[in-house]
Amino acid sequence: MSVDLVQQITALARRARVASLALATASTAQKNAALEKLADLIDAATFDLLETNQRDLLSAEAQALSPASRDRLELNEARLRKLAASVRQVATLPDPVGEVLDETTRPNGLQLKRVRVPIGVIGIVYESRPNVTIDCAVLCLKSGNAAILRGGKECFHTNTALAALVAQALADTGLPAEAVQLIPTTDRAALNTLLKLDQYIHCIIPRGGESLIRFVAENSTIPVIKHYTGVCFVYVDAAADLAMAEKIIVNAKTSRPGVCNAAEQLLVHRKVAETFLPAAARALIAAANVELRCDPASAAILAMAKLAHTAATAADYRAEFLAQILAVRVVDSLDDAIATINRDSSGHTESIVTGDEKAAQKFLTAVDSAAVLWNASTRFNDGFEFGLGAEIGISTDRLHARGPMGLRELCTYKWIGTGTGQVRG
Amino acid sequence: MSVDLVQQITALARRARVASLALATASTAQKNAALEKLADLIDAATFDLLETNQRDLLSAEAQALSPASRDRLELNEARLRKLAASVRQVATLPDPVGEVLDETTRPNGLQLKRVRVPIGVIGIVYESRPNVTIDCAVLCLKSGNAAILRGGKECFHTNTALAALVAQALADTGLPAEAVQLIPTTDRAALNTLLKLDQYIHCIIPRGGESLIRFVAENSTIPVIKHYTGVCFVYVDAAADLAMAEKIIVNAKTSRPGVCNAAEQLLVHRKVAETFLPAAARALIAAANVELRCDPASAAILAMAKLAHTAATAADYRAEFLAQILAVRVVDSLDDAIATINRDSSGHTESIVTGDEKAAQKFLTAVDSAAVLWNASTRFNDGFEFGLGAEIGISTDRLHARGPMGLRELCTYKWIGTGTGQVRG
Repeated sequence: MSVDLVQQITALARRARVASLALATASTAQKNAALEKLADLIDAATFDLLETNQRDLLSAEAQALSPASRDRLELNEARLRKLAASVRQVATLPDPVGEVLDETTRPNGLQLKRVRVPIGVIGIVYESRPNVTIDCAVLCLKSGNAAILRGGKECFHTNTALAALVAQALADTGLPAEAVQLIPTTDRAALNTLLKLDQYIHCIIPRGGESLIRFVAENSTIPVIKHYTGVCFVYVDAAADLAMAEKIIVNAKTSRPGVCNAAEQLLVHRKVAETFLPAAARALIAAANVELRCDPASAAILAMAKLAHTAATAADYRAEFLAQILAVRVVDSLDDAIATINRDSSGHTESIVTGDEKAAQKFLTAVDSAAVLWNASTRFNDGFEFGLGAEIGISTDRLHARGPMGLRELCTYKWIGTGTGQVRG
Repeated sequence: MSVDLVQQITALARRARVASLALATASTAQKNAALEKLADLIDAATFDLLETNQRDLLSAEAQALSPASRDRLELNEARLRKLAASVRQVATLPDPVGEVLDETTRPNGLQLKRVRVPIGVIGIVYESRPNVTIDCAVLCLKSGNAAILRGGKECFHTNTALAALVAQALADTGLPAEAVQLIPTTDRAALNTLLKLDQYIHCIIPRGGESLIRFVAENSTIPVIKHYTGVCFVYVDAAADLAMAEKIIVNAKTSRPGVCNAAEQLLVHRKVAETFLPAAARALIAAANVELRCDPASAAILAMAKLAHTAATAADYRAEFLAQILAVRVVDSLDDAIATINRDSSGHTESIVTGDEKAAQKFLTAVDSAAVLWNASTRFNDGFEFGLGAEIGISTDRLHARGPMGLRELCTYKWIGTGTGQVRG
């Protein structure tokens, strides 16, 4: 690794740390002014941004992408307008910094409170979507954190242009331009250097595919908040309203199969399997020609009904398909469903459909996932749907933030104590 | 690394994960019964435990320890009585599991709440004190977490005996004995295996010296909550009550110099330095013969007063002495003090002494440390002093827990949603 590169990245991180201290005490009005300015700059730069984006789209890296990835990389006028609108929307959200979490007075008279404060410097490592550059910059800025952004190489020119607008908005409104910096190279060695700079960077959030996230988790000495995608289950209980269950599994599987809160597996209680499965299969096939990968019990039921299905392999029971494919199993009991989920799901989002409150409460308590839902689609596990107002991702970790991460989850807290000369005995 | 060892540690972690699911839904009464039983077993086993502890004390590993470390390794009747009492005390603490953090109903009628739940499986990696085995087992148990304990090799027999009592207490009260397991070997390879088992273990807490913590942070693919020790500052402002400041710095430095919340550095505003420093130096020398390592300005003042001091090196300004040594600097202003602390402290605990409320508020806001105190000793940053009732350590990380970690901080949360058939549009 070149000494120059290490020095360059280290200097960048040191500047981010200095900027973070200024940003941590900036007022809400100042931060919102920078956000409004940024939205205006994006609007004003539409033509230049589209031209820059064309350079990326014509590059060899972009040519090698799948059509879906190329689509994610592409900007157009509508997307830029939406981006500017999302920046203005973050300006309207409440500022989490300074919120008092709790307070108490100790017997010795020491007054204590815990106050929400920014984490400090956050590194975001992501792949091809250029809107992530703005989304992450804006959420970090509003929550008082400095951001170091490391985007994908196929998107480098667009990201550079967007980051320049952020720096300009910061500088124009009297905030440190270095509070948001893009790593100015796509050299992999720069990422390796970044992940070791724990004296300046306090948190790394990788956003992208599992291999990127795993690389970051394995190579970082900085705490990482992971956003793995999900293997989400819907369990249809013996006491389910079967029409409701059908509506929920169709929504959970087919409304957007490529996202982490889409259902990947259906568990059906043996008592209702013969009634439910043929109807559900017809609905899933009608909605999106879903491929059903079945265990022997569910396969037998669908075979009787002459409905298309395939035999599941062991791997299908833990698979994240991100496609119109659903694994299906029949379970013997609620306990069987809970044990199956706790063993095979990814702990992201699971849903029970039942009219039996006792069964529901048992499921909600015993299933160890970030979100557990009763009579609702798994697709609701999302920062906007859960009312956070914004989302930097959905954490599949258990420390710090679990489930959707909004502005509040981009903060830590500090203890503030006020005394009158107390010393410890 | 032997395949057998990897398999053995993996199987142990898998059993811990299974046990954690049972423990997560255990009632408060059940958990408290196990704690009471454990305290009784410790009382009943006093003779055997002391005999086992002698085996460790006579081992080659123990012989190689410093007298202070040997003292930490040693059990006696009084220490065992205190240990049993601390177990009973944890039984009296409120159970954090099940607490509702917040709740809301979304416009679509979906009712949401965030509920505190155990993290899952926690690995504790520690050094020579056998009471850590019981402390950590008990805090994990009360907070519903399974624990995997990896203690120091010089303490292996004592730890094994204590862990056996925990397993017996669990089994006797109907909880899974495997909810607390000690790694049955002191082979370093076992630790390396443990730190990669992210499919079963959710959090690692290293407790010990900096080299242990760094080793764990660098080799773990599991999220780590670090408990580095502290480089804590006391800043005596121009508007300080100097008698109060003297009392605070003497307490912060001398009451227990080997702990992480002891002060390591004194900053004095130039306006009061000539008055304050000679008096403070006399008090520090009188209290504990403290060695003062001075910058040129403070050295000149102490030289005028003919008081003992040495010249500080650059390293002293960031040093954690853990001894009766104090670095001393004169600063030009409050801003200078804040910048110095944010650059050179470890972000653990800093204190300002001043009668000027505006200066205090600026310090409390701008100093980026886990605890910031006004007119109180740094020694208060502690789980018991802050009212948590217990402490597994003091986190110097910013994610999840910052500052003292008690039972609440050994938990995560999950989202629970209750619907009436909602699907996402």
